[in-house]
Amino acid sequence: MKSALIVVDMLNPYEHEDAERLTRSVEEIVEPVSELIARASREGAELIYVNDNYGDWNSSAEELAQRAMDGSRPDLVEPLLPPDGVDFVIKARHTIFYMTPLEYLLGQKEIDHLILVGQVTEQCILYSALDAYVRHIGVSVPRDGVACIHENLADAALDMMERNMDVEITSCADVKLSAAA
Amino acid sequence: MKSALIVVDMLNPYEHEDAERLTRSVEEIVEPVSELIARASREGAELIYVNDNYGDWNSSAEELAQRAMDGSRPDLVEPLLPPDGVDFVIKARHTIFYMTPLEYLLGQKEIDHLILVGQVTEQCILYSALDAYVRHIGVSVPRDGVACIHENLADAALDMMERNMDVEITSCADVKLSAAA
Amino acid sequence: MKSALIVVDMLNPYEHEDAERLTRSVEEIVEPVSELIARASREGAELIYVNDNYGDWNSSAEELAQRAMDGSRPDLVEPLLPPDGVDFVIKARHTIFYMTPLEYLLGQKEIDHLILVGQVTEQCILYSALDAYVRHIGVSVPRDGVACIHENLADAALDMMERNMDVEITSCADVKLSAAA
Amino acid sequence: MKSALIVVDMLNPYEHEDAERLTRSVEEIVEPVSELIARASREGAELIYVNDNYGDWNSSAEELAQRAMDGSRPDLVEPLLPPDGVDFVIKARHTIFYMTPLEYLLGQKEIDHLILVGQVTEQCILYSALDAYVRHIGVSVPRDGVACIHENLADAALDMMERNMDVEITSCADVKLSAAA
Repeated sequence: MKSALIVVDMLNPYEHEDAERLTRSVEEIVEPVSELIARASREGAELIYVNDNYGDWNSSAEELAQRAMDGSRPDLVEPLLPPDGVDFVIKARHTIFYMTPLEYLLGQKEIDHLILVGQVTEQCILYSALDAYVRHIGVSVPRDGVACIHENLADAALDMMERNMDVEITSCADVKLSAAA
Repeated sequence: MKSALIVVDMLNPYEHEDAERLTRSVEEIVEPVSELIARASREGAELIYVNDNYGDWNSSAEELAQRAMDGSRPDLVEPLLPPDGVDFVIKARHTIFYMTPLEYLLGQKEIDHLILVGQVTEQCILYSALDAYVRHIGVSVPRDGVACIHENLADAALDMMERNMDVEITSCADVKLSAAA
Repeated sequence: MKSALIVVDMLNPYEHEDAERLTRSVEEIVEPVSELIARASREGAELIYVNDNYGDWNSSAEELAQRAMDGSRPDLVEPLLPPDGVDFVIKARHTIFYMTPLEYLLGQKEIDHLILVGQVTEQCILYSALDAYVRHIGVSVPRDGVACIHENLADAALDMMERNMDVEITSCADVKLSAAA
Repeated sequence: MKSALIVVDMLNPYEHEDAERLTRSVEEIVEPVSELIARASREGAELIYVNDNYGDWNSSAEELAQRAMDGSRPDLVEPLLPPDGVDFVIKARHTIFYMTPLEYLLGQKEIDHLILVGQVTEQCILYSALDAYVRHIGVSVPRDGVACIHENLADAALDMMERNMDVEITSCADVKLSAAA
């Protein structure tokens, strides 16, 4: 088994509808996620950022980072900015797999297990866990590494993942990374 | 808008784990679903069956129907057997879209709205609604036309569909069909 | 490496446009292909039939075989009829991968090399070789196992496959099968 | 019908194997293609660049342009640099569709016809024309807008596209653009 830490949609200007509900939850995950990213770097684990392009088909990692920093909550963005040169996949829809090159990238690097952190638990995290599951790619989700809009739906989503998608529900401190080589 | 009624996984021998929880729920949907199928036939609406192949890569509609009738609950299968010659899509995983020709079939028939009935609400129905949503295909789900294993997860799934996937939650009696031509 | 012998579109009623040009070429491949299929059975190699549904979305292996036998050249169909229970994938378009479950089936069986036989060299065989190549699935094509409509395009297609898609061009007698287990 | 002009793989450092054969052909298309791009801008037609990432999963339009300008033939790159803010799709393999968001982008903009220019005629252009064809997306290829490595294979590729994929073979001067709105 070879894992990759996948950071989902954390370059967000937080200016959409529901942003306030979401940011209250994001406030709680920034620290554990940034520590997990630091641990991944230290241990040489695979790290991939996946982020929405918000409908801009000429965006790059730099522009998405800049736009998020220029938004309403740079304090939630700055600690999680992607390291220089990190693998970066841009998505247009609500799962990290649909119409993106992620599956190809995973195949190239022989990655067969994903650690999903980021937002939104009951949306992109749930849908991405499902898309991994149908592809027989293993998934771990640290409960303190994913942010939600509706807490009851997030709880149900984590329950669905564990029960029906073979997802390991864990924590940022406990989740096992594997070395890239 | 052109709709199709999609009957999901109702050719089931009901011999898997969780079958008993599921059949209690299926008992309640057989009648409204069979009435909806009859209405679709009467009104000339598009009707498509999608069913799992249970790992048998040489299966046909007839064999899947036979195997379901030979299972533990033919009383739940018989009223919903596919009409002769109906469009029939075989799937291998938990959504009606993944690695199936369904999207191509919908495109050919210019269908842009699905009415999903069948099983399991918090699994294949939820996942298929999501896969339709990311493709900008509209979805209606009659609450009395879908069967579940875990009622609390099914309720959360319907809530997720309505809130986050623009799904219309309706009933078998009320759902609007559109003529095929 | 684990190979599968893929028999493409040999259940054909030969009643379409260009059928006569095609059947002259098919006449020459029936014997070597049927011997290769027999060898695959003897040696316990993986064997998968892939066939067009000719627009009929309720077709099965049996019906496609029957329709081909009822066509204009049953003598070209009969020696290549699929063995009972063989893996059978139905396609709607000109490649064996597009909107079919083939890639999933290959993954399940850990098949990473295809031996493509059947028709048409400069169409479905070429396109399927390409779709395998972009997926990093190896391909061998026996020159005496594929039939064409236009000989000059078929020659160019084989040249393209060899030069640009890492395809091994070989013969039905020489191609190496690998045991399924 | 709504068309888009698709510029394929013209941000190339021309340092790979076969680069010399290719650049002799590219020299001849730079002028007609740059005129066609200018015409597309003038007429308000849709314009999309698609380019290989050459295995760098952190690349952007700007970096790919810079790397191509730093290569061996900036004179072939500079006249075709993408306009600021143009739609830009990054691909990892030999067709513009495989594991890219292009199909989604086309759907969003209701584009159902592609004018393919760029390189390589008998590789990415051929494969992309095929991937468009199986999706029922129309294609035009200006003969003086596509560059090849092997002239005989390019001729066969154009013949295949015209005969088997309903592609209109035309010229940069004659090809019809349609206004974006």
